[in-house]
Amino acid sequence: MSGGWPDSRFLALSGAACPVIQAPMAGAGGIDLAIGAIRGGAVGSLPCGMLTPDEVRAQVAAVRAAAEGPLNLNFFCHALPEDVDDGAWRALLAPYYAEYGVHEDDGSAMRLPFDARMCAAVEEVRPELVSFHFGLPAPALLERVRATGAKVLGNATTPDEAIWLAERGVDAVIAQGFEAGGHTGRFLAGRQEEALGLFALVPLVADAVTVPVIAAGGIADGRGIAAAFALGASAVQIGTAYLACPESGISDAHRAALAAGRSVFTNLFTGGLARGVPGRLMRDLGPIRPEVPPYPLAAAALAPLRKAAEAQGEFGFGPMWAGQAASLARSEPAEVLTRRLARDALAALARLGGGTTTS
Amino acid sequence: MSGGWPDSRFLALSGAACPVIQAPMAGAGGIDLAIGAIRGGAVGSLPCGMLTPDEVRAQVAAVRAAAEGPLNLNFFCHALPEDVDDGAWRALLAPYYAEYGVHEDDGSAMRLPFDARMCAAVEEVRPELVSFHFGLPAPALLERVRATGAKVLGNATTPDEAIWLAERGVDAVIAQGFEAGGHTGRFLAGRQEEALGLFALVPLVADAVTVPVIAAGGIADGRGIAAAFALGASAVQIGTAYLACPESGISDAHRAALAAGRSVFTNLFTGGLARGVPGRLMRDLGPIRPEVPPYPLAAAALAPLRKAAEAQGEFGFGPMWAGQAASLARSEPAEVLTRRLARDALAALARLGGGTTTS
Repeated sequence: MSGGWPDSRFLALSGAACPVIQAPMAGAGGIDLAIGAIRGGAVGSLPCGMLTPDEVRAQVAAVRAAAEGPLNLNFFCHALPEDVDDGAWRALLAPYYAEYGVHEDDGSAMRLPFDARMCAAVEEVRPELVSFHFGLPAPALLERVRATGAKVLGNATTPDEAIWLAERGVDAVIAQGFEAGGHTGRFLAGRQEEALGLFALVPLVADAVTVPVIAAGGIADGRGIAAAFALGASAVQIGTAYLACPESGISDAHRAALAAGRSVFTNLFTGGLARGVPGRLMRDLGPIRPEVPPYPLAAAALAPLRKAAEAQGEFGFGPMWAGQAASLARSEPAEVLTRRLARDALAALARLGGGTTTS
Repeated sequence: MSGGWPDSRFLALSGAACPVIQAPMAGAGGIDLAIGAIRGGAVGSLPCGMLTPDEVRAQVAAVRAAAEGPLNLNFFCHALPEDVDDGAWRALLAPYYAEYGVHEDDGSAMRLPFDARMCAAVEEVRPELVSFHFGLPAPALLERVRATGAKVLGNATTPDEAIWLAERGVDAVIAQGFEAGGHTGRFLAGRQEEALGLFALVPLVADAVTVPVIAAGGIADGRGIAAAFALGASAVQIGTAYLACPESGISDAHRAALAAGRSVFTNLFTGGLARGVPGRLMRDLGPIRPEVPPYPLAAAALAPLRKAAEAQGEFGFGPMWAGQAASLARSEPAEVLTRRLARDALAALARLGGGTTTS
């Protein structure tokens, strides 16, 4: 049943009522957002890249207890850099440590790549979908995930990455435009200066692979969903619009930053390139610094500083991720948002096909 | 009559049969492309920023003699920088002058802003549309253009620029996404790092102004046109797809570069930021250099070098402008391309509204 959608392949694959994935968003998403999205008819996502396997088990149980529908677990597949000296980065942050009286260096929630222990948790909790950022896990692990019956999604920022993922058997490709908030998932060689906007990326990816394409980045309302279908997508993944929901775990400063909506790429918060609205750290240092150690190591030195600064009301030492359509977002519960997105998209699609005149 | 298009405001405004403007593209566009586009039902454009008023008169006469339909004349509105020392730039180019045996410093075709003499030509030739890049001319000149009956289009890269243009009475706003080939038209303060993708830009501009919005950048087929309408546009401006037509005046090297399609922003060719595929100069120097004098002055020192290099078969000292959807372009006559764009867009729109299932 397509329910008025021009392409039902993602609906068939996921079992969702509407072709929307609530984006995982590590650090901001969680149980409540996923529950709201699933109740609204979308695929709900849990960002698992900063969780332990036991936390994943507990969060999935909490979602399952409250909502019936497709759940996506998202994991990272980065290679952990070894023997990195983050001395230059710590030296750059030293004045802030002094300003906020930071002495201890507590362990931050480390972003770890998907591994065998986490895979065991997936085998237990059996999500309907599993999505990976920064490539895919090793073939044996990927096979174990697939054997659970979960549909596997990979994230591509170029047609080449989409082909790489399709060759490894993903069930669908997320085409992430440079408009997307948070970390760009680029994992094959290539220059950030060549980053593709979603308008060009979706048709190029749709021409390059035969699996369904899920458009991500800069989509925050029904117009964007309809446009994604026009370009050849079978679904969309929406992040920033869900950030504005009361269920998201972001600061008031971050919430206010969404309305301003002037995001840029920065490497300051993790060492990886990610799109966010500048706060104090980005304004002071500039968004890109060579002193920052590679992903995900920059976060370790920042974590105690962020904690101390936020205790004093300064939220500019944590990331304020936002996509380029951030100012289209409204504050409404995730379930309400999801239903509005689907309704507005269907209305937009019907208008497009109607050949009517607006004037 | 909307002819199946979901929004007929641009058709009414322009008199075109389909909601497409063939982008002007100074240095590559011209009489033949404009004729083909008009014959196909689009608005044809003549890039006039590097022409004299008499050349404009002659080119308009040539188009009028061969095609009946709406013609757009495009002009630049930059402020000419004064007292600029381009010594550092010339020093950077000196090894290439030596390599190609360049001695003389001929005058290149200077990019001049729209002025009273050019306005007199517009008053004579009476184009249906006039579009401006880098802002608008002074109010008195703008009023003279408007008094000819021409519809006036301005180019915006942000919602703020769209509002600025609307407040000055433009009849439609071109929303130029960062995917667009050639020069970004950004004219109000703002950082290039904040450049917006078309997917976010079109709905933000459509919400900000009441005049029709023309989407530009990364659109090269019917899917893109349909998506632009979904996002709130009333028309599209398409450049790179027309570059691939036999009527365009680009080199074979440039033509081959379109298929590769990996474009980045560079300031090397004019001093202004523009998107193109790297050739030898961009590869040697890197795409962005601080030594380059401000727009449009960089072109003066490059012109004789480019001429000498091209005489020896090296085309990497001229710009190879391309938008991000360049690899979607095919080589076919402009009239054929225009009819295909319209046909494919209408088919895509009908599919979107049909609620049918593809599998």
